[in-house]
Amino acid sequence: MSLLEQLAAAVGERNVLTGDLVAGYDRDWTGAWHGDPRAVVRPATTDEVAAVVAACAQAGVPLVPQGGNTGLVGAASPSDGEVVLSTTRLRAVGVPDPGTGTVEAEAGATLEAVQTAARSAGLELGVDLASRGTATIGGVLATNAGGARVLRHGTTRTQVLGLEAVLADGTVVTRMNGLPKDNTGYDLVQLLVGSEGTLGVLTRALLRLSPRPAARAAALLALEDAASAVAVAGALRSVPGLDALEFYTAAGLDLVLAAGRARTPFADAAPVHVLAEAVGPDADVLAEALAEALEELPGLQDAALATSETDRARLWALRESHTEVLAPLEPVKLDVAVPLVALASFLERLPEVVAAVAPGVTPVPFGHLAEGNVHVNLPGARPFDVDGAVTDAVLGLVASYSGSISAEHGIGRAKRRWLHLGRSAADVAAMRAVKQALDPAGLLSPGRVLPDPLA
Amino acid sequence: MSLLEQLAAAVGERNVLTGDLVAGYDRDWTGAWHGDPRAVVRPATTDEVAAVVAACAQAGVPLVPQGGNTGLVGAASPSDGEVVLSTTRLRAVGVPDPGTGTVEAEAGATLEAVQTAARSAGLELGVDLASRGTATIGGVLATNAGGARVLRHGTTRTQVLGLEAVLADGTVVTRMNGLPKDNTGYDLVQLLVGSEGTLGVLTRALLRLSPRPAARAAALLALEDAASAVAVAGALRSVPGLDALEFYTAAGLDLVLAAGRARTPFADAAPVHVLAEAVGPDADVLAEALAEALEELPGLQDAALATSETDRARLWALRESHTEVLAPLEPVKLDVAVPLVALASFLERLPEVVAAVAPGVTPVPFGHLAEGNVHVNLPGARPFDVDGAVTDAVLGLVASYSGSISAEHGIGRAKRRWLHLGRSAADVAAMRAVKQALDPAGLLSPGRVLPDPLA
Repeated sequence: MSLLEQLAAAVGERNVLTGDLVAGYDRDWTGAWHGDPRAVVRPATTDEVAAVVAACAQAGVPLVPQGGNTGLVGAASPSDGEVVLSTTRLRAVGVPDPGTGTVEAEAGATLEAVQTAARSAGLELGVDLASRGTATIGGVLATNAGGARVLRHGTTRTQVLGLEAVLADGTVVTRMNGLPKDNTGYDLVQLLVGSEGTLGVLTRALLRLSPRPAARAAALLALEDAASAVAVAGALRSVPGLDALEFYTAAGLDLVLAAGRARTPFADAAPVHVLAEAVGPDADVLAEALAEALEELPGLQDAALATSETDRARLWALRESHTEVLAPLEPVKLDVAVPLVALASFLERLPEVVAAVAPGVTPVPFGHLAEGNVHVNLPGARPFDVDGAVTDAVLGLVASYSGSISAEHGIGRAKRRWLHLGRSAADVAAMRAVKQALDPAGLLSPGRVLPDPLA
Repeated sequence: MSLLEQLAAAVGERNVLTGDLVAGYDRDWTGAWHGDPRAVVRPATTDEVAAVVAACAQAGVPLVPQGGNTGLVGAASPSDGEVVLSTTRLRAVGVPDPGTGTVEAEAGATLEAVQTAARSAGLELGVDLASRGTATIGGVLATNAGGARVLRHGTTRTQVLGLEAVLADGTVVTRMNGLPKDNTGYDLVQLLVGSEGTLGVLTRALLRLSPRPAARAAALLALEDAASAVAVAGALRSVPGLDALEFYTAAGLDLVLAAGRARTPFADAAPVHVLAEAVGPDADVLAEALAEALEELPGLQDAALATSETDRARLWALRESHTEVLAPLEPVKLDVAVPLVALASFLERLPEVVAAVAPGVTPVPFGHLAEGNVHVNLPGARPFDVDGAVTDAVLGLVASYSGSISAEHGIGRAKRRWLHLGRSAADVAAMRAVKQALDPAGLLSPGRVLPDPLA
């Protein structure tokens, strides 16, 4: 039997797509990463996933797992000749268990589907991203996705209580008992979280749910510079229930306003805006706490408080529409982090570093202030980045501050050349040994995360 | 040069102990695990640790890292012929950074030393154990220790922001940048946490610190049975700031009282006691919240509230002196967990299961109620457990509830025979592959965690 016949036997003929039918699965949503897959396979159960992986292993054909295809580093879009294992049909979401505060979800369930299920039980998932309607649980876990709620909840890996995955040889590892304490050997769950499809295909997860706060209040602050934004982070640290702390600059705001995607509550433009949100039993008390913490803050030009759902949504639109208004400009996108104490200096030096390799390009930085996490968007920089000169310059600047070259998007295909800027040679060697141990033939998402040997 | 000469060259002659000088390092504190080490080596820096590991690797001599020697599964006490790498001289604790909420500590620093440093900065470490004065950070991380504060903070691994370790080949992996978001490849930190010295020697860690709550209040509850204790867990779930939820039975209380180690506030003995503690801005408000949540709880016979430090300490002494009053009775000790919904049933069936293999032995169960984590102590059971019959019976019962055969102590040498009760064959194979990848010669803590092949 040919590989395609074996795949059809495993998942049914109509779930093995080839030719024109691979459209949409063959590239990421930005169009930056694409390839000609050998086939797209859509298993509906863990057993079917195992059969697909085993068939590819036997045929020696590389395979890449794919969820919502919202990743930004090319981890889940195929290279030529790969089989795409799409989790589209693995989308069941269990009934949340209020007793244990958990919910089970299949890898292909969208983040939003899990959030909705949690809410229906009076609970919430401590993970949220702008792409929630498309991004899948499998992808969110495989990339240890960040987002705007890491401040209160930690990164995705802290919300993962259990996981099931198919390894490269087709065997299934499972840890779904949900026990909060279980020290029985190595933590394969945490090893798989953030491994970007290179160590296993995630099929199912047990996720932690938290009590849903009764109220939320948000404050949008107009600030004179990035240093003031960092001071805001310090001033708000003591506010109980601080849940999000985001920032954007005038460059991004101009694009959002020009696109008519949101309205600013301020008459004058400010160089830097910070959006803070806190949760607790009472919205007015929260708003008061935010206002009080910000009293006499130097550099604060203006502030707007929001306690209603509608008003909060208006403020969030200013921040969340950044990604979409930037997309048509085909920017080079680099997701990085620097220690918070270095953030103002990093943002100050960024334009000159970019201008040196990409004349005329103005950075549009925005992101998650609390973690020093900056989405460096560089519209018009792609022609200058063909050989990675722009990426090299920005990531080099990040490394000079002991920052992270990938705060939340992962390494994928996009950044593996630069992995040495974030990890030591000993670290990379250990990672390579683990990869070799779990995928000796190198068939799971090859060419992602780890640089080529001797590169 | 002989191995001992090489070790002396690495750490200084006076820090290579042999003969009678190995006393104390050659056995765990219970005396259950012991061996004749080839030498005890006490490096004082990471470079010295690397030199020791490299020298042992070159000589093909097995090595076992050892911290405070308070572990209970034989992971850190030597087998015959092993070199003990003691972290006694790696005990520096950094100055807590209130800005990032972190503190750096060397592996040999005691848990208490780090707690004290945190407190001096108005912060707290979210990890606490009764053995805090002796247990080291290295041991606490290597075992992913649990303890009484997992309820609010999670297990130790959630408090680890960075780690440095020496791998089996003497190379040093380091991730100490402390960035809350850093998705640059596999999470070696979380792989090393809980690996019980089998994948690397931990040398240094960056730990998360939390704001220190202004007040604490505790409630000791006398209950008519275990089912009532489980009901307490449900009733208290909604109390904000719930920080600990412990339990013990009449069997343990009798031993504690007989030893004069603590006094009970109740006139009558109750079958089950639960100790709950909550944290927040005001002790009286907390005590009120606890009392209110417990109103009309079926099975509640008596209750005592404590808001002062002294009163709280008195209640905690009842729970924390269990381990020490049991020690002279040389019990078989099995640390297990079952889903909370199964706890009452487990505790009910435990005596008959034990009696079937160890006639006359009465279980003394106590532990961490919130996680269904039971320290099954079996005084007088050792003669019946020579071939593991008692362990087998209890762990079999645990497995029948889909519980954990080691909730917080780890596997070590004690439970590797039973690993299959908690992990699937595919899981164990994957763990073995990882071990083989990072320690191909099998010289780091051999005979721990993983069962012998073909066993």
